[in-house]
Amino acid sequence: MTYSAPLRDLQFAIHELAAYDRVAALPGYEEFTPDLVDAVLEEAAKLAANVIAPINRAGDTNGSRWADRQVTTPPGWSDAYQQFVDGGWCGLGSNPEYGGQGMPKLVSAAVAEMWKSANMAFALCPMLTIGATEAIELNGSAEVKQTYLPNMIAGKWTGTMNLTEPQAGSDLAAVRSRAEPQGDGTYRIFGQKIFITYGEHDLTENIIHLVLARLPDAPPGVKGISLFVVPKFLVNADGSLGARNDVQCVSIEHKLGIHGSPTCVLAFGDAGGAQGVLVGEANRGLEYMFVMMNAARFAVGQEGIAISERAYQKAAQYARERVQGPELGGASAEKVAIIRHPDVRRMLMLMRAQTEAMRGLALVVAAAIDAADCHPDATERARNQAFADLLVPVIKGWCTETGVEIASLGVQVHGGMGFIEETGAAQFLRDARITTIYEGTTGIQANDLMGRKIAREAGTTLFALVAVMRADCAALAASGDADLAGIAARLAPGIDAAEAAGRYIVENFRRDVKTVSAGAVPFLRLLGIVAGGWQIGRAASLAAQKVAAGSSDPFYAAKIVSARFFAEHVLCQAQGLAQCVMNGGASVMALDESLF
Amino acid sequence: MTYSAPLRDLQFAIHELAAYDRVAALPGYEEFTPDLVDAVLEEAAKLAANVIAPINRAGDTNGSRWADRQVTTPPGWSDAYQQFVDGGWCGLGSNPEYGGQGMPKLVSAAVAEMWKSANMAFALCPMLTIGATEAIELNGSAEVKQTYLPNMIAGKWTGTMNLTEPQAGSDLAAVRSRAEPQGDGTYRIFGQKIFITYGEHDLTENIIHLVLARLPDAPPGVKGISLFVVPKFLVNADGSLGARNDVQCVSIEHKLGIHGSPTCVLAFGDAGGAQGVLVGEANRGLEYMFVMMNAARFAVGQEGIAISERAYQKAAQYARERVQGPELGGASAEKVAIIRHPDVRRMLMLMRAQTEAMRGLALVVAAAIDAADCHPDATERARNQAFADLLVPVIKGWCTETGVEIASLGVQVHGGMGFIEETGAAQFLRDARITTIYEGTTGIQANDLMGRKIAREAGTTLFALVAVMRADCAALAASGDADLAGIAARLAPGIDAAEAAGRYIVENFRRDVKTVSAGAVPFLRLLGIVAGGWQIGRAASLAAQKVAAGSSDPFYAAKIVSARFFAEHVLCQAQGLAQCVMNGGASVMALDESLF
Repeated sequence: MTYSAPLRDLQFAIHELAAYDRVAALPGYEEFTPDLVDAVLEEAAKLAANVIAPINRAGDTNGSRWADRQVTTPPGWSDAYQQFVDGGWCGLGSNPEYGGQGMPKLVSAAVAEMWKSANMAFALCPMLTIGATEAIELNGSAEVKQTYLPNMIAGKWTGTMNLTEPQAGSDLAAVRSRAEPQGDGTYRIFGQKIFITYGEHDLTENIIHLVLARLPDAPPGVKGISLFVVPKFLVNADGSLGARNDVQCVSIEHKLGIHGSPTCVLAFGDAGGAQGVLVGEANRGLEYMFVMMNAARFAVGQEGIAISERAYQKAAQYARERVQGPELGGASAEKVAIIRHPDVRRMLMLMRAQTEAMRGLALVVAAAIDAADCHPDATERARNQAFADLLVPVIKGWCTETGVEIASLGVQVHGGMGFIEETGAAQFLRDARITTIYEGTTGIQANDLMGRKIAREAGTTLFALVAVMRADCAALAASGDADLAGIAARLAPGIDAAEAAGRYIVENFRRDVKTVSAGAVPFLRLLGIVAGGWQIGRAASLAAQKVAAGSSDPFYAAKIVSARFFAEHVLCQAQGLAQCVMNGGASVMALDESLF
Repeated sequence: MTYSAPLRDLQFAIHELAAYDRVAALPGYEEFTPDLVDAVLEEAAKLAANVIAPINRAGDTNGSRWADRQVTTPPGWSDAYQQFVDGGWCGLGSNPEYGGQGMPKLVSAAVAEMWKSANMAFALCPMLTIGATEAIELNGSAEVKQTYLPNMIAGKWTGTMNLTEPQAGSDLAAVRSRAEPQGDGTYRIFGQKIFITYGEHDLTENIIHLVLARLPDAPPGVKGISLFVVPKFLVNADGSLGARNDVQCVSIEHKLGIHGSPTCVLAFGDAGGAQGVLVGEANRGLEYMFVMMNAARFAVGQEGIAISERAYQKAAQYARERVQGPELGGASAEKVAIIRHPDVRRMLMLMRAQTEAMRGLALVVAAAIDAADCHPDATERARNQAFADLLVPVIKGWCTETGVEIASLGVQVHGGMGFIEETGAAQFLRDARITTIYEGTTGIQANDLMGRKIAREAGTTLFALVAVMRADCAALAASGDADLAGIAARLAPGIDAAEAAGRYIVENFRRDVKTVSAGAVPFLRLLGIVAGGWQIGRAASLAAQKVAAGSSDPFYAAKIVSARFFAEHVLCQAQGLAQCVMNGGASVMALDESLF
């Protein structure tokens, strides 16, 4: 088995850490009992391990291939996709009105982690489809929704997001693609889009492109961009497929990783214009995208967690099997498995503890998203939404940056074998490397965190989070348990550091935005470490309660070790990062541009 | 131009930071005047930029190819190698007695950095040859030396190091290859060696393999390994090439990076035994290897610096050219080059400042190696040797780990384009990834540093270094210069942290080797950061003196900015790392093996 879903940790994070009972009590989620959730997780784990993980390596070595404007996915891809569809996994979290199963985000997110671990390149296809369905559902007309959503949610058609153009990457204001109204309610779309994930493939009969483009009378910049649905095959009134639309895949990229996922250059309108339909109102396309972006960023943040889990499993297995050298300080000259060597153990613990902390934080945020969506009380909805809004860029930025580091540690644990492609550890590093870039680079996430999520509201949500973390930390310190107190001893200064850096941001952001922004990424990492430490500290506290109540489940003892390790090896970076945020801005901008 | 050698910074590091005048005053180096050194650097820079760098990408995309036990190097490789040989670059630092030019390490190391930046996969070939010549020169008989050294030093033949076997990676005690004495002073070698860099290629008429193997009566473990010279073609008494020896390249590896460099599986003795000659005494092979290892580890550490420089240059160029988004906090909506965005600038400064700090430290150590080799005073030789011995694992470990991070930052600066292979930034990350593994992993370096270089001598050299650093730091603090004082304010607690962690090691290593060793890599990183900060602080001080003396060379102003940035963004990690070393050991080893 190349991947075994971490069911126990997922269940712990869902039921205990993120308190699933509170989610199940929300209106609309009553039917999703804890037992049903566990059954769903177990079924997903089987599909991930038996069907999706086994084709991961073939996806890497073969890659998706392009010829004659067609894309052929790797061997096994099509069968696996059909099993994924047949199992009803596409619409797990989608609206039941259009055939979805309407499960809480907390559950669908946990399930999604498994797909991403099993095969990140494969999992991108349903992930993008979900994003497209959400954009249509939130903003589309009834007719557009009825035309596209049922087939997309069923997985019969897939969806894409067409934002990037050669001159418009992080800066979507620079989008130049044009949309010409035809007078009949439809538009002709012209332009070239790049980096379009699964922009063309052979998995489904149709592909529904969501495309950002400008109307002829649109104002310049971000307020002149509209969103269009442009199907690969037009859809007739009876739902059957009509003519091939004027959108063509003119090439795919040769990438460092995720070779199985075709990254397409799409040409719209080379033969007279691609027929499209406006989604929502004109000139509000970017705004619609931003609404969806939280979901997409959360999903990419989870890729960081998922690839970490996969890299950890592979490294731990190798470390248990590879025999090299005698035990350090041991009396015997007998060779031992390298897992007994302290530095190998340290690397494995770094991989494991950070993965658990990231997963815990992500699923707690998922539960907050559920509450933000469904809680009957408007104040609770708003409070949860603010919490999620603050932490989504952290999950995207911190979990992906850490994911790259963990995948790199996975290579290191393998020694020389890690550098050999057949081993498979290097693929995780290559795949992970895109996660800090797409769906907004870490720098973009950090600017969002610092500017929109903290400075704009003078830190209200951040400082509320600090207060909650501090209370939880005080409980650890007062627990009378040496491990928990040890965790608190490192978490407390971390929280102080995050608060101090937050105050610095609030006080200085408007006055000197460039200098303060130079510390945006270090601050994001700081908040990630502290929030992750908070959650793994909470996890340790819950575990200690079980142990105190007589549980002999080794899972709980291991959780406490992970948390202590995280406190001692990761949280100790917090104060240095805060110093860097608060004192490091000037030297970032001091060197004249010409001297680089 | 894809690579432009950082001549100004190399010259500064050689002449000012490492005080070349003191090296030139050593017996044997008198003829190498500063002007001659500069001329050598300039010629090397031309060859690196015009001949070796241009074939780097073709080396990556084509790779070395294996067929019928032959290896074909990538297009252009052979021509470039011939130009390299014709220019006399192979023997730059080698013994004049065998045709070398006998230049100081300080000069040959600076030149070697350029080859590694230009094309790391290419530069491995002469680097391995130098290692093999040094092993032969130190331990070989007069006949062996005369037979092999002149042609190897001229570059007419290349050399390899055959250590690793499938079961013997970091643990060379597990070597199983056998050597059977033939009664005529020669031996028949049998066994399989893996990961042999340039073990087979088409660049030269002969390849001289240095091979670790066991004699029939050898004791088990490390004290039973002997070193043999095994040429691909036997060498006749008149120096002409004789019969093909029984060593065959049975495959090459498919690797994450350095595709141009063939990584070979070599089979010795499949047809009756490969003829070899013993180097030095029986059973002392590993000891001979260890003597050479300092040089090899230094050379790999430099790969980290070299790839950082190359990645920096590429990222800085892209950041100057790529236009995206308006200036943060600016009044205008006009789009600017991304180098004006604070987080991009921060990434470039991280790349630049760390590269400069690593280069400075490495060349100061190179000067110490020259003094250790040639100083007329035995105390000075011993002092310099101890300094170099302490810092070589730091240069190997810290510079390569940082090199991987910097190459990854280089990808990040490019955004989505960084993930596209044609851009070239990803190659540097793929190439860099081996440097923390081969020639001893970072964990091996850190154990060497902590055990052999610190605990064994109760920290004598480390604490002497601390005293020197502290004196230099005090001078910065007392300089009256705000920048220098700002650097000192961060360097001082860094030095304290390194000293405290060092005392912890000295006091606890013997008592609890496993727990202490769990902090070996964090300690190595800590010492790297602090020693690098010391050298870039010294560099800033030298630069400030030039500025105070009226120099308007922007190089000096830039150096001060780099040093401040390093202090504020890198040195601030020191205390957290020390905490991790001193408090983190127990949680590393706490989790039961079965729970991973």
